[in-house]
Amino acid sequence: MSAATTVLEREIGEQPEALTRTLETCLPEARSLGSDLVGRDVSYVLIAARGSSDNAGVYATYVFSAYNGLPVALATPSLYTFYHRPPRLRGALVIGISQSGQSEDVVEVLTDARKQGALTAAVTADGGSPLARAAERVLRLQTGSEKAVAATKTFTSSLAALAVLSAAVANDSERLEQLKRLPDAVDKAIQAASGPASLKAERYRYAERCVVIGRGYAYCAAMEIALKLKELTYVTAEPYSSADFQHGPMAMLQPGFPVVLVAPRGALTPHLTDFAGQLSQREAEVIAISDVEEILGHANVRLPLPEGCPEWLSPVVSVIPGQLLGLHLAAAKGLDPDRPRGLHKVTITR
Amino acid sequence: MSAATTVLEREIGEQPEALTRTLETCLPEARSLGSDLVGRDVSYVLIAARGSSDNAGVYATYVFSAYNGLPVALATPSLYTFYHRPPRLRGALVIGISQSGQSEDVVEVLTDARKQGALTAAVTADGGSPLARAAERVLRLQTGSEKAVAATKTFTSSLAALAVLSAAVANDSERLEQLKRLPDAVDKAIQAASGPASLKAERYRYAERCVVIGRGYAYCAAMEIALKLKELTYVTAEPYSSADFQHGPMAMLQPGFPVVLVAPRGALTPHLTDFAGQLSQREAEVIAISDVEEILGHANVRLPLPEGCPEWLSPVVSVIPGQLLGLHLAAAKGLDPDRPRGLHKVTITR
Repeated sequence: MSAATTVLEREIGEQPEALTRTLETCLPEARSLGSDLVGRDVSYVLIAARGSSDNAGVYATYVFSAYNGLPVALATPSLYTFYHRPPRLRGALVIGISQSGQSEDVVEVLTDARKQGALTAAVTADGGSPLARAAERVLRLQTGSEKAVAATKTFTSSLAALAVLSAAVANDSERLEQLKRLPDAVDKAIQAASGPASLKAERYRYAERCVVIGRGYAYCAAMEIALKLKELTYVTAEPYSSADFQHGPMAMLQPGFPVVLVAPRGALTPHLTDFAGQLSQREAEVIAISDVEEILGHANVRLPLPEGCPEWLSPVVSVIPGQLLGLHLAAAKGLDPDRPRGLHKVTITR
Repeated sequence: MSAATTVLEREIGEQPEALTRTLETCLPEARSLGSDLVGRDVSYVLIAARGSSDNAGVYATYVFSAYNGLPVALATPSLYTFYHRPPRLRGALVIGISQSGQSEDVVEVLTDARKQGALTAAVTADGGSPLARAAERVLRLQTGSEKAVAATKTFTSSLAALAVLSAAVANDSERLEQLKRLPDAVDKAIQAASGPASLKAERYRYAERCVVIGRGYAYCAAMEIALKLKELTYVTAEPYSSADFQHGPMAMLQPGFPVVLVAPRGALTPHLTDFAGQLSQREAEVIAISDVEEILGHANVRLPLPEGCPEWLSPVVSVIPGQLLGLHLAAAKGLDPDRPRGLHKVTITR
């Protein structure tokens, strides 16, 4: 990648290092949380988060269910802040995710949970924030300060913190080993996608809408890429699982409709290869983020992923080409990627 | 409303009657499920659903949390069908929602749950379907057959079935009384919105995108209205909670950008009145679905709701003007509302 000319580009490039530091810092705290769980009758996880952090919560849904046997519910903060009817949290591990740790609604869910006696943890970059103070355990994101309004390194570091939590709680040495290779995979992804993303962004200079599709583990990456495209380029980008897309919104497709398909190799590969074929049959404009040659073969624009990433970690790697597409499309549209219109770095909602 | 010329319009009109029958049929089964719960240590609810039924699941998130103290997790079927790693369901009540009862992935979640010993229930229009056979308890939607591809009466009846379940389990006679007045409120909503929706639909003949915003109980209605607009009119309609919208996508707003605001009177009214003011300050095109005069006052197009509906039931009523907008906008665009392009009535996904 050439020398970064924007804060966003620099922060995208800082992700491998942020991941290395975050994984190191979070491992001991994750092990402690694992010990806390012993003897406490935890039967599910409740996650409170907003924006990019909510997409990290979707990642947790898959990882904690598949590897820790724990179903995950996403909290609805308005039940606390507007309706004053929080649910009973018997059997819950409650996790709040917020890079700033300032989101009032997320803090309120944690505060109530702790009052009810539930085990609580915060995932945040600010160890002195209200969220960190509200929680018993804090998984600190070691990202350094994030200045661009659009979150990149705090998102991937949040996923890494949740991944290390899942592996440490399960005492899963194989997955802990795989995590060590994650920063390098992200570095390779940045290198592989920077060229094509920068070269092809202009093609979408006048696109007003698109959909971003992923399924299984990749679904959270699709959600996050859609959010980046909206924040950075003002394109109406809507995320879907391929299954939900076939249940209705598929009707929107007409020739040339842009579809970003997030399809890292894994259990869904045969299904998504079929699906990519259907998209190209309908003459959709397919932008494929994949390391599967057959899927890339159906694409109008190929954003290749490095091979060899285990599927449970693939969202951390798959989101990278989407971040880069957002960055370069903003540039092609003459927009400032560091300061999207009408947004602030810290959004306080009740 | 004038004589229906399409199946969709007729089925929208049949909703009050379908609700009356569904409420009657579901009440005894809901009471039985309430008895099943006694002595079983249920600490949360897991819901499996797709498409419109998934939006009904979001409704359950609010109602079961607020009135039954039970947090709600939405199942991720790919954990079953592709990853073969279902979570442990100790302490769960598992509900599958599917009008046809045919969705393989939803059936698989219920089958596994029952094998694990969890209490299971199905919400479906077909009592002989695979989903109904997989579940211990069946809440039958008495909608008659639904022929239009876009679900309307099965959606509102699913909400009613979940509402009666919540009230019966809590043995809440006040809410059971309120439910009896629901069909009449829906009838009034159809009458109040039919004129404006038909008159104003042409204004959006060339709109390619919009957002649909609701918060709290109304969020599921916003999701369902967005889905109807996509299915029926091919508009890229994206649903948001007002809080999530402020966390990023707000950047997309430019003068004239259409925003459907679903804002029935309730705990959120002061917040949404502010929010409507912000939207009109940014010169967004506001289409307000509300019974609050101050919110309607910020609107370019007013789709009024009848007054007096208790907030916990308001999604059933608030979705109606959105269904009618979808119907009439399809007509204004020369599209056949009964047979959207590329969709089938029953979508089977794994």
